[in-house]
Amino acid sequence: MKKIILLFLSVFIIGCSSSNDDGAKVPLGKIAKQFEKNASLLIETAMSDTDGFERLAEMCDTFGPRFSGTVNLENAIDWILDEMKKDGLDNVHGENVMVPKWTRGNEYAQMISPWKKELHMLSLGGTIATGPKGVIGEVIVVNNFDELKDRANEAKGKIVLFNVPFDGYGKTVQYRSNGAVAASKAGAIASLIRSVGPYSMNTPHTGNSRYEDGVKKIPHAAITVEDAAMIGRMVSRGQTVKVKLYTEGKMEPDSPSRNVVAEIKGSQYPDEVIVLGGHIDSWDVGQGAMDDGGGCVAAWQAVKLIKDLGLRPKRTIRVVMWTNEENGLRGGNAYRDAHMDELEDHVLAMESDAGVFKPKGFGFTGSDESLSILQDIGTLLSSIESGKITKGGGGADIGPIMREGVPGMGLNVDGSKYFWYHHTNADTWDKLDRDEFNQCVATMAVMAYVVADMDMKLPR
Amino acid sequence: MKKIILLFLSVFIIGCSSSNDDGAKVPLGKIAKQFEKNASLLIETAMSDTDGFERLAEMCDTFGPRFSGTVNLENAIDWILDEMKKDGLDNVHGENVMVPKWTRGNEYAQMISPWKKELHMLSLGGTIATGPKGVIGEVIVVNNFDELKDRANEAKGKIVLFNVPFDGYGKTVQYRSNGAVAASKAGAIASLIRSVGPYSMNTPHTGNSRYEDGVKKIPHAAITVEDAAMIGRMVSRGQTVKVKLYTEGKMEPDSPSRNVVAEIKGSQYPDEVIVLGGHIDSWDVGQGAMDDGGGCVAAWQAVKLIKDLGLRPKRTIRVVMWTNEENGLRGGNAYRDAHMDELEDHVLAMESDAGVFKPKGFGFTGSDESLSILQDIGTLLSSIESGKITKGGGGADIGPIMREGVPGMGLNVDGSKYFWYHHTNADTWDKLDRDEFNQCVATMAVMAYVVADMDMKLPR
Repeated sequence: MKKIILLFLSVFIIGCSSSNDDGAKVPLGKIAKQFEKNASLLIETAMSDTDGFERLAEMCDTFGPRFSGTVNLENAIDWILDEMKKDGLDNVHGENVMVPKWTRGNEYAQMISPWKKELHMLSLGGTIATGPKGVIGEVIVVNNFDELKDRANEAKGKIVLFNVPFDGYGKTVQYRSNGAVAASKAGAIASLIRSVGPYSMNTPHTGNSRYEDGVKKIPHAAITVEDAAMIGRMVSRGQTVKVKLYTEGKMEPDSPSRNVVAEIKGSQYPDEVIVLGGHIDSWDVGQGAMDDGGGCVAAWQAVKLIKDLGLRPKRTIRVVMWTNEENGLRGGNAYRDAHMDELEDHVLAMESDAGVFKPKGFGFTGSDESLSILQDIGTLLSSIESGKITKGGGGADIGPIMREGVPGMGLNVDGSKYFWYHHTNADTWDKLDRDEFNQCVATMAVMAYVVADMDMKLPR
Repeated sequence: MKKIILLFLSVFIIGCSSSNDDGAKVPLGKIAKQFEKNASLLIETAMSDTDGFERLAEMCDTFGPRFSGTVNLENAIDWILDEMKKDGLDNVHGENVMVPKWTRGNEYAQMISPWKKELHMLSLGGTIATGPKGVIGEVIVVNNFDELKDRANEAKGKIVLFNVPFDGYGKTVQYRSNGAVAASKAGAIASLIRSVGPYSMNTPHTGNSRYEDGVKKIPHAAITVEDAAMIGRMVSRGQTVKVKLYTEGKMEPDSPSRNVVAEIKGSQYPDEVIVLGGHIDSWDVGQGAMDDGGGCVAAWQAVKLIKDLGLRPKRTIRVVMWTNEENGLRGGNAYRDAHMDELEDHVLAMESDAGVFKPKGFGFTGSDESLSILQDIGTLLSSIESGKITKGGGGADIGPIMREGVPGMGLNVDGSKYFWYHHTNADTWDKLDRDEFNQCVATMAVMAYVVADMDMKLPR
């Protein structure tokens, strides 16, 4: 509460020329000046809200993780559609999407020699089952793909462990995505990775993985940072480590899901659309609170906020919660296909899928002219230090429409802990902070509202 | 490596009048002045060591957690005794102790309604089994013992969940220790606690618990902070939550273990003893690296360091690794009983059981005169900022001999993350830092050596 009061005060004191990251005053841009009053109102109202963050908790707690192909996900979508109608949003509906369905089933991993230890683990999305007897083998530990190539003759008939420390997501996730293929090419019977995360409290991370045509499919799972490091040390001391892996992973027929859509219809240019949202599906662990329930609910609350304040913009603001980002991107692709005719009039697409931590601004992909305009609008967010618009950015779900020419932006937030929780049982509501969530709501609300209501259409 | 070089430099530059926490120069005490050269040598040598920290890793990785009554523990003790002999320490031996044996067996907890979720859990030490069908019941959530008393009529036939946020270990651990008794008195069929820790990544914490004569024993387990908080929120929204708990906890007959003892025999007063150490047992999860493998190995390395430098003190320095601190304190009690005749000549007892993080100094329980002398000696540790001796302190294992009059002290360290890992699968070697470990070694070595070698016997 103290934080909220302080933020209120800062909004009032700072008034029209708010401070930037360094506390220096940022003059309002030309466009921003016309929206000063409404932007302040949006920010102040967002920051005093308690309902949005609680709505996220209720969704997380009531339905659990929202994995593609599960009843949880469809129940959550039904509830969101009902709530959106109660909110009085326009054109609330689901858009059908067939999504892949992978089921985890039971699973475990055990070090069975030189001593017995349960290895906390999560199978990686898409993995095959081991069969009822599991897979038992000696572990060969490698630190990267090159080492596996060099030592391929040692890997045959063994379980490969990619003991790769986190070195940025993009780099390290290669072992999750492609580890099974590389291990199989070397003749391994299964593939284990050190979980992809910079910090662990014995916390395994799941995530998607792939097989390759012509390469034998082998089971693929993640163990914890702690256990991978331990096995690495044991083997480097000359010990022989044997592991038993049991998985029941299975691909089932595609299953029906939906993209969630709701709008505030534009008063002057209803066909011109600003779309914002996140992905409503999550992995089948934790609560998907950060990835990406928070992004979805923050975007939803941003639109609700604009509506509740009676700020009907000239253009349409559409919130979309895409389905199946995690293991298929079917929602993002289906949205593109279903709205292909309208994409010319999609003015801007905005995605929040980096967690709802302290927002910093947006990364934008589009013309330099648009970037300047968005930077102008960003000055309205100086009071909550979330108005920095940088070049380059977007999101997985808006990727398909961005590739059709729609300018896109991704909400940038403090990402220091994102990969602590990413795809784990620790991605739960309690990891988030209401003030930071509300700042994300305010940031998206101001940006979406001004782009939707300013006189000029954002140029491509 | 960089850190080590910097520390070296600081030792050399600071020389005889080293800086305190604030960087101000601390003049050496009267006694300290006589030991300036040897203390510097101990610190410098400790800080450049790589073997001690690796020895801790080897112990943790080779034997696993060292729970009372397990082969792991006894194998680790055999290895330590062998290694101590190789180190050339005097009088290396084990002292027999019968310890309680509780076995965990298989266990799980599931939320079965309103939706199904695996609840990561650990049974609490000493709990009984649920029986083959488990225990199924509606959950009543309480925030403290008083609330349970007020609502006792609602608890009958239900599973009590103590959803108590961490508010310091001493206060919050009451629910782990006494929760089953309180819940049973209210007629509950099982007791669950929110894990006792300030931070969680879906990480359950175990630890000991108790039953009371005349109060029916019911199963007692810890779920994670995340799941306890979620169930608390669900129930507060009016949902009915049902849980299935399955445990196989069982007390078995007492089992043989040992206290580990090794010495540097004193050159002038061999019967006067400075004893230092930690407890070699751990819980049956993680590696017991921090609690208390690190304390044991740091004390051992401190003694080895004194020996390797040829600094034979006037009095005997004895390292002891007590067994069964966690669920019985049989080692500490057995040491007192076996050495009762010598306790008059136990000059000082020193325990490290708060983790081997950045050391700050010691908490001391004894006469004011001794405190002054130890503070004098503490000035020798200013270069590594670990020489602050405060009033009050000791340790569980040295408690029995302290109650017989032996002055005692506990190593104080930065405790900010201790309860993150305490009694969890995340208490693993990777959580520790070699430089901090070496600082603990240096701190204990300097303190033990000077007390053992100074002209006067530390007065009681």
